[in-house]
Amino acid sequence: MSPLEIGIIGMGNVGSGVAKILTNQADMLTRRAGRPIHLRKATVRDLSRDRGVTLPDGVLTMDVNEVIDDPEISVVVQLIGGIEPAREIMLHCLNAGKNVVTANKALLCEHSDEIFAAARENNCCVAYEAAVAGGIPIIDVVGESLASNQLLSIEAILNGTSNFILTEMFNRDASYDEILHEAQQLGYAEADPTFDIDGTDAAQKLVLLTHLAWGTRVSLEDFPRRGIDTLELADLKYAGELGYKVKLLATSRLTDDRLEMHVQPTLIKTDRPLANIDGAFNAVSLMGDAVGRTWYCGPGAGQMPTASAVVSDIVDMALGRTALTFPHLEIWRAGSEHEVVPREEITSRFYLRFQVEDRPHVFADIADILGQHDISLASIIQHESPELDEAKEGECSIVPLVVMTHRTQLGKLLAADKALSELDALREPRIRLLVAD
Amino acid sequence: MSPLEIGIIGMGNVGSGVAKILTNQADMLTRRAGRPIHLRKATVRDLSRDRGVTLPDGVLTMDVNEVIDDPEISVVVQLIGGIEPAREIMLHCLNAGKNVVTANKALLCEHSDEIFAAARENNCCVAYEAAVAGGIPIIDVVGESLASNQLLSIEAILNGTSNFILTEMFNRDASYDEILHEAQQLGYAEADPTFDIDGTDAAQKLVLLTHLAWGTRVSLEDFPRRGIDTLELADLKYAGELGYKVKLLATSRLTDDRLEMHVQPTLIKTDRPLANIDGAFNAVSLMGDAVGRTWYCGPGAGQMPTASAVVSDIVDMALGRTALTFPHLEIWRAGSEHEVVPREEITSRFYLRFQVEDRPHVFADIADILGQHDISLASIIQHESPELDEAKEGECSIVPLVVMTHRTQLGKLLAADKALSELDALREPRIRLLVAD
Repeated sequence: MSPLEIGIIGMGNVGSGVAKILTNQADMLTRRAGRPIHLRKATVRDLSRDRGVTLPDGVLTMDVNEVIDDPEISVVVQLIGGIEPAREIMLHCLNAGKNVVTANKALLCEHSDEIFAAARENNCCVAYEAAVAGGIPIIDVVGESLASNQLLSIEAILNGTSNFILTEMFNRDASYDEILHEAQQLGYAEADPTFDIDGTDAAQKLVLLTHLAWGTRVSLEDFPRRGIDTLELADLKYAGELGYKVKLLATSRLTDDRLEMHVQPTLIKTDRPLANIDGAFNAVSLMGDAVGRTWYCGPGAGQMPTASAVVSDIVDMALGRTALTFPHLEIWRAGSEHEVVPREEITSRFYLRFQVEDRPHVFADIADILGQHDISLASIIQHESPELDEAKEGECSIVPLVVMTHRTQLGKLLAADKALSELDALREPRIRLLVAD
Repeated sequence: MSPLEIGIIGMGNVGSGVAKILTNQADMLTRRAGRPIHLRKATVRDLSRDRGVTLPDGVLTMDVNEVIDDPEISVVVQLIGGIEPAREIMLHCLNAGKNVVTANKALLCEHSDEIFAAARENNCCVAYEAAVAGGIPIIDVVGESLASNQLLSIEAILNGTSNFILTEMFNRDASYDEILHEAQQLGYAEADPTFDIDGTDAAQKLVLLTHLAWGTRVSLEDFPRRGIDTLELADLKYAGELGYKVKLLATSRLTDDRLEMHVQPTLIKTDRPLANIDGAFNAVSLMGDAVGRTWYCGPGAGQMPTASAVVSDIVDMALGRTALTFPHLEIWRAGSEHEVVPREEITSRFYLRFQVEDRPHVFADIADILGQHDISLASIIQHESPELDEAKEGECSIVPLVVMTHRTQLGKLLAADKALSELDALREPRIRLLVAD
């Protein structure tokens, strides 16, 4: 059978990994794809840089159009990050009749309407296994392998940088700033890690999974997200005392035909597998109506894990599997979207940490306000203040008070929080975390 | 598009689950499969039994030939267990030009040569997601999603009954016999649980995964297997003291182009995810040359998880994906099989438990014999004997001695064991377990 001719746009770290697999495992891939996969063109910014793989003369080019205009190329691996010019290039490729494999979650999260429509118009496919959870084949699982199931929930650790930082903070009793700095030195965190640590990256991936699982296209603005950048070591330790680990958890859950979605630092019982996913790994826990709970773990980023996902998409395209699968994914289920549960109606148990003045009646006041808002308490931690004896006359020491609520609505908690903010005895910060069921 | 007409042979527990999904999720499946999936015939032994699902008149039949001879039926779901008549029926179906979906691991383990050849001759497919690890889509993952990888190892908990028993023994300080009896009462273990607890079931599944991953067809006789039926609670507890859990682990590992395979009760460090898979769950840890380590967990058996896997295979067939995938699986890679490492050359760390007479020189004798066989010790547990003071004059109390070796070959250990058996001070049983890397 004739080779599948591919082009790579954006021959950076992942692109070089893709070229390595195509080169080093050519025989194996030919066998499994039913035909040779031939890297015909790859665009670079610098022709002379060493990429750890030797390519024939003429493959590397600085001109994107050499890929888009090449009639022999039927699959373009689009590895440029961010929105522009990635969006424009992607649309060009589709309009030129190329199938596209991409790892760009930000672009798909924001512009999948336009991109998928262009694919359909041109009778092309878009494959994006590498956009979510790195080397874990979770797009395949949700889109194909569990096609026999109505999914009921997705709970996932989708940002390796955040998970690495949380793990190291907890294991080494270290502060957020200290570990973030170290992670940047080691290359585990970007120089500008904003989107990793503020929850944006995880939220973009959750949008893609939710679209694929339920056919509902949600915007980032439609659900609450918070990252790990407001967490303190103290919270990880109190959670530990209560029998929980804190993870940056991305959740989509079908409840009464609506979708409850959020990305939040979340307490997870230590005996649940997700609680024990440490370091830069990702993990996805799926609940299906037939299969029950299954879960999937692996490296969430990195050159070769991401390249592994890209090449699997290429093999699918070479065999013709993608052409069969793509038109029947739930992403095409227009007009039957699930409503997203409004922020105030999100229902959960919550972990609350207050900084309170250590004097009579403070706890009673807090409990009273929570009670007035119909919030009942499941457990409480208040340790003796180490500074109590040293407090000067007329001054109160500040002590932490940790409370775990029973299930309640976020709206009630926000209203209570407003009332609590009037209490003189409460100091900043007031920490609020979700607790997973 | 015209409906996919299917027939089920063996409408037992799993078959009824398949019928339930096809009936209750018909709209969803039609969308995802690109065409309706229509259950045309299902064979039963008793037409009147309640199966928890209402089927149109005329679907149930007691005559297998009504399925095989029906020219409209293109996919047969073959759910009869054991070897005969399952083998004969499967070959009839394939020779009649039907694609087959099956959950029968024993049959495929023993007769895949004949069955796959019949499929190829008749231009049909055999799909067997449900045969391995129940609801975990591990056949899809190994056969498709990780097609970009040369797998380096498979380590898996593939028997839910064994894992349930080990978990309960450890958590409740209970004996093997006690928990097995309870598991049978609860329906977690069969009335005759032999193949579950002696490792046969796990070994059959490992044979299928190994064939799919490396194209090497191994017989059950070609690698050592042992079940959990020789384990004692004491060993689970000593393992715990050393920082390990004991799991019935099925392992295939590529080493120097040969395959090291075994099914054995194995010590796994408690901080590894596989060690924390408790209860009736299954889990598979895969090492790929590009992706690194990924792992997959879920229910390993049960009506609906198994039916979930069967229906996913049916959807694949309805879409036409199986027809593209099946001819390019590694199972067709004849002539390039990997040799299986002979039992004696299996290399591992080992856990050894001896029952020794509590008198001078016994430990020195054991260490001496192990040393003569080039086996060095990594750790040792010998607790004070509780009966020591009560021992009668002239009698020795019997105490357990637990030793963890450094990496060595099983052959050396077997030779040492022979020498050890000559020592008067050693009593039965002498327990030997693998320790995972």
